[in-house]
Amino acid sequence: MTAIPSRSSPLIPRLPPSPSTLFAAKAAKGLTFAELSKELGRDEVAVAAIFYGQAQASEVDIRKLSEVLEIPHAQLNEQLSGFPDRGHTVDMPPREPLIYRLFEIVQNYGYAYKAVLNEKFGDGIMSAIAFTTKVDKEMDEQGNAWAVITLRGKWLPYSRF
Amino acid sequence: MTAIPSRSSPLIPRLPPSPSTLFAAKAAKGLTFAELSKELGRDEVAVAAIFYGQAQASEVDIRKLSEVLEIPHAQLNEQLSGFPDRGHTVDMPPREPLIYRLFEIVQNYGYAYKAVLNEKFGDGIMSAIAFTTKVDKEMDEQGNAWAVITLRGKWLPYSRF
Amino acid sequence: MTAIPSRSSPLIPRLPPSPSTLFAAKAAKGLTFAELSKELGRDEVAVAAIFYGQAQASEVDIRKLSEVLEIPHAQLNEQLSGFPDRGHTVDMPPREPLIYRLFEIVQNYGYAYKAVLNEKFGDGIMSAIAFTTKVDKEMDEQGNAWAVITLRGKWLPYSRF
Amino acid sequence: MTAIPSRSSPLIPRLPPSPSTLFAAKAAKGLTFAELSKELGRDEVAVAAIFYGQAQASEVDIRKLSEVLEIPHAQLNEQLSGFPDRGHTVDMPPREPLIYRLFEIVQNYGYAYKAVLNEKFGDGIMSAIAFTTKVDKEMDEQGNAWAVITLRGKWLPYSRF
Amino acid sequence: MTAIPSRSSPLIPRLPPSPSTLFAAKAAKGLTFAELSKELGRDEVAVAAIFYGQAQASEVDIRKLSEVLEIPHAQLNEQLSGFPDRGHTVDMPPREPLIYRLFEIVQNYGYAYKAVLNEKFGDGIMSAIAFTTKVDKEMDEQGNAWAVITLRGKWLPYSRF
Amino acid sequence: MTAIPSRSSPLIPRLPPSPSTLFAAKAAKGLTFAELSKELGRDEVAVAAIFYGQAQASEVDIRKLSEVLEIPHAQLNEQLSGFPDRGHTVDMPPREPLIYRLFEIVQNYGYAYKAVLNEKFGDGIMSAIAFTTKVDKEMDEQGNAWAVITLRGKWLPYSRF
Amino acid sequence: MTAIPSRSSPLIPRLPPSPSTLFAAKAAKGLTFAELSKELGRDEVAVAAIFYGQAQASEVDIRKLSEVLEIPHAQLNEQLSGFPDRGHTVDMPPREPLIYRLFEIVQNYGYAYKAVLNEKFGDGIMSAIAFTTKVDKEMDEQGNAWAVITLRGKWLPYSRF
Amino acid sequence: MTAIPSRSSPLIPRLPPSPSTLFAAKAAKGLTFAELSKELGRDEVAVAAIFYGQAQASEVDIRKLSEVLEIPHAQLNEQLSGFPDRGHTVDMPPREPLIYRLFEIVQNYGYAYKAVLNEKFGDGIMSAIAFTTKVDKEMDEQGNAWAVITLRGKWLPYSRF
Amino acid sequence: MTAIPSRSSPLIPRLPPSPSTLFAAKAAKGLTFAELSKELGRDEVAVAAIFYGQAQASEVDIRKLSEVLEIPHAQLNEQLSGFPDRGHTVDMPPREPLIYRLFEIVQNYGYAYKAVLNEKFGDGIMSAIAFTTKVDKEMDEQGNAWAVITLRGKWLPYSRF
Amino acid sequence: MTAIPSRSSPLIPRLPPSPSTLFAAKAAKGLTFAELSKELGRDEVAVAAIFYGQAQASEVDIRKLSEVLEIPHAQLNEQLSGFPDRGHTVDMPPREPLIYRLFEIVQNYGYAYKAVLNEKFGDGIMSAIAFTTKVDKEMDEQGNAWAVITLRGKWLPYSRF
Repeated sequence: MTAIPSRSSPLIPRLPPSPSTLFAAKAAKGLTFAELSKELGRDEVAVAAIFYGQAQASEVDIRKLSEVLEIPHAQLNEQLSGFPDRGHTVDMPPREPLIYRLFEIVQNYGYAYKAVLNEKFGDGIMSAIAFTTKVDKEMDEQGNAWAVITLRGKWLPYSRF
Repeated sequence: MTAIPSRSSPLIPRLPPSPSTLFAAKAAKGLTFAELSKELGRDEVAVAAIFYGQAQASEVDIRKLSEVLEIPHAQLNEQLSGFPDRGHTVDMPPREPLIYRLFEIVQNYGYAYKAVLNEKFGDGIMSAIAFTTKVDKEMDEQGNAWAVITLRGKWLPYSRF
Repeated sequence: MTAIPSRSSPLIPRLPPSPSTLFAAKAAKGLTFAELSKELGRDEVAVAAIFYGQAQASEVDIRKLSEVLEIPHAQLNEQLSGFPDRGHTVDMPPREPLIYRLFEIVQNYGYAYKAVLNEKFGDGIMSAIAFTTKVDKEMDEQGNAWAVITLRGKWLPYSRF
Repeated sequence: MTAIPSRSSPLIPRLPPSPSTLFAAKAAKGLTFAELSKELGRDEVAVAAIFYGQAQASEVDIRKLSEVLEIPHAQLNEQLSGFPDRGHTVDMPPREPLIYRLFEIVQNYGYAYKAVLNEKFGDGIMSAIAFTTKVDKEMDEQGNAWAVITLRGKWLPYSRF
Repeated sequence: MTAIPSRSSPLIPRLPPSPSTLFAAKAAKGLTFAELSKELGRDEVAVAAIFYGQAQASEVDIRKLSEVLEIPHAQLNEQLSGFPDRGHTVDMPPREPLIYRLFEIVQNYGYAYKAVLNEKFGDGIMSAIAFTTKVDKEMDEQGNAWAVITLRGKWLPYSRF
Repeated sequence: MTAIPSRSSPLIPRLPPSPSTLFAAKAAKGLTFAELSKELGRDEVAVAAIFYGQAQASEVDIRKLSEVLEIPHAQLNEQLSGFPDRGHTVDMPPREPLIYRLFEIVQNYGYAYKAVLNEKFGDGIMSAIAFTTKVDKEMDEQGNAWAVITLRGKWLPYSRF
Repeated sequence: MTAIPSRSSPLIPRLPPSPSTLFAAKAAKGLTFAELSKELGRDEVAVAAIFYGQAQASEVDIRKLSEVLEIPHAQLNEQLSGFPDRGHTVDMPPREPLIYRLFEIVQNYGYAYKAVLNEKFGDGIMSAIAFTTKVDKEMDEQGNAWAVITLRGKWLPYSRF
Repeated sequence: MTAIPSRSSPLIPRLPPSPSTLFAAKAAKGLTFAELSKELGRDEVAVAAIFYGQAQASEVDIRKLSEVLEIPHAQLNEQLSGFPDRGHTVDMPPREPLIYRLFEIVQNYGYAYKAVLNEKFGDGIMSAIAFTTKVDKEMDEQGNAWAVITLRGKWLPYSRF
Repeated sequence: MTAIPSRSSPLIPRLPPSPSTLFAAKAAKGLTFAELSKELGRDEVAVAAIFYGQAQASEVDIRKLSEVLEIPHAQLNEQLSGFPDRGHTVDMPPREPLIYRLFEIVQNYGYAYKAVLNEKFGDGIMSAIAFTTKVDKEMDEQGNAWAVITLRGKWLPYSRF
Repeated sequence: MTAIPSRSSPLIPRLPPSPSTLFAAKAAKGLTFAELSKELGRDEVAVAAIFYGQAQASEVDIRKLSEVLEIPHAQLNEQLSGFPDRGHTVDMPPREPLIYRLFEIVQNYGYAYKAVLNEKFGDGIMSAIAFTTKVDKEMDEQGNAWAVITLRGKWLPYSRF
């Protein structure tokens, strides 16, 4: 079975047209995010975020995606240029079990992260904008797979005024 | 200023008594989570989560905390033994700006993580139970601080039935 | 560590006084729900539900609990007699991870259960009142523990009128 | 009357196209979930969950469904391949009376299950992923029908970190 | 003016197609629920509930409705056969003033009903499934009209387990 | 066991002090709502509604309750005189199973009631203010108990303006 | 600029078709609500409420509107006859600033109105059904315009039962 | 029975201490809002709003209330001076039936008011700040009481920028 | 890449047709809000608000926009004339990160603004209607860009009544 | 009347103890935020935010506040040291009219701000952390007061990854 998200997803009504176009082309070409990541020189998560309209695609990104996925440039430019209108894909609280687990981590450990971050960095926040993230796969000695998600954000101290 | 959470926090009504006891003792002793982490042999985030009642403290953890923080063992045992009733500390959506940024990452990248994780691992979830996490501090060349949060969870494939 | 729920639980403000009284006595006596179950001739889940004020305790139940847990009968009668005011212990959606998993099963499989139940029984519902439930523990060949929860409810067909 | 879900269901706008296709074909062929269960070698609830897009269909499942229900393979593959986007079919709290009863069981007995499970297994959760479920029909001596739903999930202890 | 619900109702997007079909035919034939009630041998409220997809229509009901309302049997069977997916027509809290008044009665008198029902019947509920209801019109001596709604449900005692 | 509501009810924080006073006195005297109903010349539901602060008690009602329940008149007058602040006792949607069933009836049959009432009475509402209600118990031939709740409200036509 | 509501209103999806028809015809004819009010012998607010499907139009109202606005009678009758399904046009809390101000008046002065009304009238409510309303414009001496909204409802005392 | 709000009101936890002080004193003195209105030279609704902390009391208002109600000036000044923190007394949607009726008027007629106000005044809002309100009682020829609430607010046109 | 909002925005279903028309024309002409601002003699924010249907366009505004953007006047007049139905574009709480930051400022500093404004101006509000706003860009000495948003509203004191 | 917030505010239960201490002392000393602003060398809004626990007070701030307001240093240090737990003071949507107006500005102009900011700065956000704000008072020629709130935040472009 190919690793594409279900094209009959209930998500689609809430999404811009780009995911349909992009996922269909990706499936037809049999490409993975890992392969697209190399083509664009961007992380897999960033590529997937472009697919869902949650990250900005540069002119070069659009041109490369158009070539690799064989989507007409004008169509893709129409769908991907401009500034993303982020934040509308996930129900809150999330209903999707995989995404709920990430939410649960924030719900359960949120104040623990705050206490440790405040202790290490002072009063401020970890930026979600000056921010990168990635997903790794590790195998332990018993042959179990582990997912490792890394969140790296610039520390922003509160301005004193 | 000592790096303790505000003892006048609006959180307190929603919390069990343990955070008040523990944060007050930690401040009085001038200890950091990093130092407590070494004493208990547990990660800083796990120690902070014990403070907030979001992780289970073992008998040994309770005894060590009692000794290091000079809290009567009976009092601490009364407050920390038993099974945590997790998930009640954070408003959802979170109102605290630091915690909101973590939530926003899930909101914006949730489906991108799902797409990449499904591609790498198949149909399943990253466990939030068979799970560890940590916080690191990095400095870039311009002297900016970056926070790095690592989430590591066992991959659980959906059972076929 | 004794198997008692945390006595510093954030649940307590939403609960009647009986859980505090009962869990403290159960911990002091070192009794399990399995043992109480035998004393009362009721299922473990029913006993725990009495502790949380979610199931009715009969006069005999109250007297036996009073004896076994060494709680003055008048106090326990004051706290347990009368009709339960059910449904107030769990946040909805639940924030507690263990309870959330049960909720997620309903969220994900709700319409599948309905389709299969309608096919097997016709138009109606499985009663949650004329209803019993139990929890079992099974070990598989690899030594993994599995929890088995059985829900058994009378089928109620819709009246034709 | 055939035991199919109403084809004029208000659910449909929230659903992917697969349920319409599958329920119509199932009704036309006059097949039950029990019969499809035998064809696919999967439980009735799992088959119904595939119908609603809440469980993954393997390549073999798709091929068998295509044959048994006489739906063109390309159409069914288009609708069922990929990873399910779970959790969107049920309102929360559920409005459908049959599904509400399941929700009410979680609402009323949630903390009782937690207390009994923690006592039997320690600190952790019953997985909803490494999980199987089934529906049985029992008749009592008075001729009343009872529905029995079994939930079986792997016990996941919290990692210590 | 004929006593039909507005055919331009904002309800329609949330409804299955059957109400449009049925109300239009009922208006065209100039029939009342009272008259349809006699034809089907079912209560007026039950007939109206069938119109809104909130009660199951038997094969005979469908055939009679098809004949009386002159709707092609195949179309009506397509729209009405199967199991209702109940509970989606009313906003909660209801915005419609007539329906809000019924809701307000539950909101204001809910615990009073519970206290009286528990006193009369013990611990249990009045079933909404093994249940019938009807609407009557009474005129008082001053010529005022009064609506009388009767709710009759089987008493279900909680199982002891 | 006496038929009193649990005095350890989670409701109490949301309630005025009168229910505690009244239910305790009622239990101590061993009186039923049926008996109080006769004393006050008011319906059982109205008496229970006074207990919960959901109906106004007249001066005579207060005096009689004071006498029958042996509560000092000044205390009862302090607690019951004045105008009720209605509507705060029930969660919406209700979590209590008995009250939920009443709510479900409104949710499922709301538009059916509206259609039948509009047909019988025209454009308007059934008043919940110029309104009386009562609870009856019926036994069927098989010995099953049925609860019958009657709602009787004045019909208020919309003013034309 | 003509005083018509924006025909590109986000309201439209939640509205029945009548507002589009009526506002377009009103704009084309250059008529005001004041003028239509005279034609129909109904208040401006009532006429506007008919436009939004929030008040019932009589047969005469429909015929006059059809004539004055030159809308085919059959079309208007199709859209306006029947009983309104009220309450769906306004988000709650309202997002529209003009409507929010009315809501804020209820939010801020609600209990003050209740205290004064109870003092003047006893225990009861001001009907929103046996109710009329109007909007007036006043100019003060400095040339400022003031809007005056009058709400007039029949006082309904609670029935004693 | 004196026309005071119930002193055992569930509102009290959400209210500042002033209502308890003021309503108790008002009841003890047997004064009405109408009488206090004359003493302070302010409308009855404004006086009641001061009682609930929803309108600002001037120094003179406080002194007069202190004298008329015989409340120590220092106590009343402590409770009433400063700026009101408005908007917290009413649940939204309101559960209190009297207040709900006012809310329902906004819900049902909100867009009709907007259409008429825009037509009469242009693009803007009726101020809820530069605003006065009053309650009148009228008797019709049949002896029915009618409540008349007048809302009068300055018209604020949107600035062009 | 041109600075246009994504034309595949999930916002569009909630928006009137004007944004699609206007943003497409603006992109085709390669015009900025700064340039349109000069053409219309209105602030950039006001022009963008017109695009989103959140500010009223005068007849002259419509004519100028029609000319500059080469959109047929009749089409634009159809889409922009009339009174805006404001407030429907933003989810609350906002999900879009840029807009969330503005919301967070209100959430965090709301009572601080109130305290300072009350001290400076007395009891009242800053109008959001008699109101202008603008966005400026500043560069600091390190070459960092800063956004400066100015909110200027007329102070409205509460009427004394 | 002194310009202090009402000490009987419904806010207090949600607030840490510091506001009560600080506002009482400020009122007793008759100091304004403007005066405290000079003493601390911080903006008035920042000082008010410290009062509400929404901004961090440095050791020097605490010492100066202790001296100027004559609050024992240990008490103030206990209440103000540590890291703020922000975001809990304001209901969302806000019920307080002054704060609602700020919220309404975000609700109405949110996407207009985004469109203009994206055009001026590219893809990113205005920081609410690297952020200062102030309140000014202006008088126009007619003698009307205008409030001017300035929001100044660092522009953070999204990282490319």
